[in-house]
Amino acid sequence: MATRAKAIEGGVVSAKGFRVGATGAAIKYEGRNDVALIVASHPCSAAALFTTNKVAAAPVLYDRKIARNGYVQAILANSGCANACTGEAGLKDAELSALATAGELGINPKHVMVASTGVIGRRLPMQSLLDGMKKAAQALDSTPEAALGAAKAIMTTDTKPKQAAARVKIGGKTVTVGGMAKGSGMIEPNMATMLAFVTTDADISPAMLKRAVKLAVAKSFNRIVVDGDESTNDSLFVLASGDAQNPKITLAGEDFDAFLEALSLVTISLAKQMAADGEGATKFVTVRVKGAASDKDAARAARAVARSPLAKTSWFGKDPNWGRVLAAVGYSGAAVEDMKAEVFYGKEWAFRRGEVADAAQLARLEKAMEAPTLDITVDLHLGKGEDVIYTCDFSLDYVHINADYTT
Amino acid sequence: MATRAKAIEGGVVSAKGFRVGATGAAIKYEGRNDVALIVASHPCSAAALFTTNKVAAAPVLYDRKIARNGYVQAILANSGCANACTGEAGLKDAELSALATAGELGINPKHVMVASTGVIGRRLPMQSLLDGMKKAAQALDSTPEAALGAAKAIMTTDTKPKQAAARVKIGGKTVTVGGMAKGSGMIEPNMATMLAFVTTDADISPAMLKRAVKLAVAKSFNRIVVDGDESTNDSLFVLASGDAQNPKITLAGEDFDAFLEALSLVTISLAKQMAADGEGATKFVTVRVKGAASDKDAARAARAVARSPLAKTSWFGKDPNWGRVLAAVGYSGAAVEDMKAEVFYGKEWAFRRGEVADAAQLARLEKAMEAPTLDITVDLHLGKGEDVIYTCDFSLDYVHINADYTT
Repeated sequence: MATRAKAIEGGVVSAKGFRVGATGAAIKYEGRNDVALIVASHPCSAAALFTTNKVAAAPVLYDRKIARNGYVQAILANSGCANACTGEAGLKDAELSALATAGELGINPKHVMVASTGVIGRRLPMQSLLDGMKKAAQALDSTPEAALGAAKAIMTTDTKPKQAAARVKIGGKTVTVGGMAKGSGMIEPNMATMLAFVTTDADISPAMLKRAVKLAVAKSFNRIVVDGDESTNDSLFVLASGDAQNPKITLAGEDFDAFLEALSLVTISLAKQMAADGEGATKFVTVRVKGAASDKDAARAARAVARSPLAKTSWFGKDPNWGRVLAAVGYSGAAVEDMKAEVFYGKEWAFRRGEVADAAQLARLEKAMEAPTLDITVDLHLGKGEDVIYTCDFSLDYVHINADYTT
Repeated sequence: MATRAKAIEGGVVSAKGFRVGATGAAIKYEGRNDVALIVASHPCSAAALFTTNKVAAAPVLYDRKIARNGYVQAILANSGCANACTGEAGLKDAELSALATAGELGINPKHVMVASTGVIGRRLPMQSLLDGMKKAAQALDSTPEAALGAAKAIMTTDTKPKQAAARVKIGGKTVTVGGMAKGSGMIEPNMATMLAFVTTDADISPAMLKRAVKLAVAKSFNRIVVDGDESTNDSLFVLASGDAQNPKITLAGEDFDAFLEALSLVTISLAKQMAADGEGATKFVTVRVKGAASDKDAARAARAVARSPLAKTSWFGKDPNWGRVLAAVGYSGAAVEDMKAEVFYGKEWAFRRGEVADAAQLARLEKAMEAPTLDITVDLHLGKGEDVIYTCDFSLDYVHINADYTT
């Protein structure tokens, strides 16, 4: 049995071997942090996952090349400008930022990645960015304050910084995993608009790290939906310093499982924080589908519900409109027999095998919708397929925020 | 060459052989029409298309059986209650309404269809509905006023009644096609939440009518998106009385083409009216994709843009945020090379092959977004694939309307 991993307070520099610095460079907004620099004391085993959007931003194109090396020592991140749809010039900007960062830190440029988030189609203000990078390099530290400053620097329309950490014993050594993320709009499975940076002091081979990251992402970042849009810039970076000095993980087994458990605690926490802080969200919603004919059917059904603007606006309105939930399941492609299905809001049933909530039950349902978190469960009673998606409601503020973002 | 079809003023009783009656039966709201009855002077060639949602409403299940007969003489429609997710009891309500209608009119119940739209999961108030049906039967008429009354009776959150008509010469005879529809939320290709009733006095075999309907729907009702939700009740009914006494259309050829042209004028007009009156819509938006690697790619790309909440809210905000348009194309699954792509708002370019609008061009774009209709064109410059989708923006009112619909 693997020692159970435990969530702890912490962030991107909780693990040994990492420092972070952040600063304000006025890339889009004045008076806030918008540049962050994460630096390891030596090149780390690295795994990275990027957007599947065919319109991928310049930093994503650049990092994909760097990722082939398998090792990363520093990542420069900025908010306010996505450096997407900027062509050859944008790609050169990404490369130049990486080279300048390597120069400033005196490290190999092959071990530097870059990440950007913000408005599409604008060039990076290179002078401001590089000035910011230099200031961030001066401020490198491994305090909780430094971690929080960096978590704030990567925010766009996020209302809260997102951090998580976990600890687990591996071979008698304490291994720490920590991270930070930004999400908000454009969040959808298959790597949604998000930047996430995770560091660990575990000693693990690049191949096993990659495997752990894929497994952890499948249950976390690929399980969140905000609005169904998928961005050009989504990236997850995971760096492992090895400074915990655990017996190196090079194979599947107990140690790998323990590491995966800690990593998953961090990625699931960050993913839920992203869904809960979806643009304009007033409610964090967990959509569970069970009893589906297959897991694939359950996933389709849960995603259709989580994406349905009609369902999402009803959650915002605290309206137990289960008909919209069932209608979304109906068009999802999953097998459904409505007279076998059940829909629950929290622990209260709204529809069960043809029976519809009466006034008394409706009052209970309306009460269940008052809470800031809502669990919706659809039981199809057709098989053993299950899935879960983390999402949020669709509010007036979502429209306010997005009607007027670039200008 | 087929004589060209011409759009005319008119609606569901413009063609010879049809009468319509409408009345208020307080099914959900007081003081408005909510029951409509369309009656032909004799059984008509009929074609019907229904929702592909696996959670199909009782009237849809009932009508699918009737449709096998190939002939229809009357359709009873109501708004306010969808009669969906109501199980066996709901199915019996649908059947009973059809039987009662046949009895009242003295016609064969095999030739009666029913249609419902409104809230899911509530039983039809049968007494009110049947009283309404009887009153509507007393009021049957073929005046424009009667047609307008019926078009209003089928509305849910629609803000405007939707009618269209067209005329064409076939074999020296004047053939008329007319119809009415309701749309609003849950509108998406593959038969969105809509009810549409089209009548014609063309003499055409059921088989050729079915063929014409499929072709017309592919270019109209299957080309609209409001919010990506697909309803449990979507139905299109087309009845052909033969009263125009044209040489009966039983084969492909010039006469068929002429009929299809008139039918398409009506279905495209109704589809565009639905998109323009999408819930809370402030803008009617046409999304065109051309230069795609294939027509399929173009369709995917156009639908992704039309469904993107981020793109839709930017249209509401009159914000020429072309990055969101291109990002949606990027995740649609269509082949894209962003440095070859162009995005236009009306006639103004926003992004062309890597070049981004400067301040002067941005001012022109912002001006182009002031109009209540907006044409967005994406040219991928990869091939000859083309597609077009009619849609609308996503406004604060969409959220207002849908946050509080059942209660």
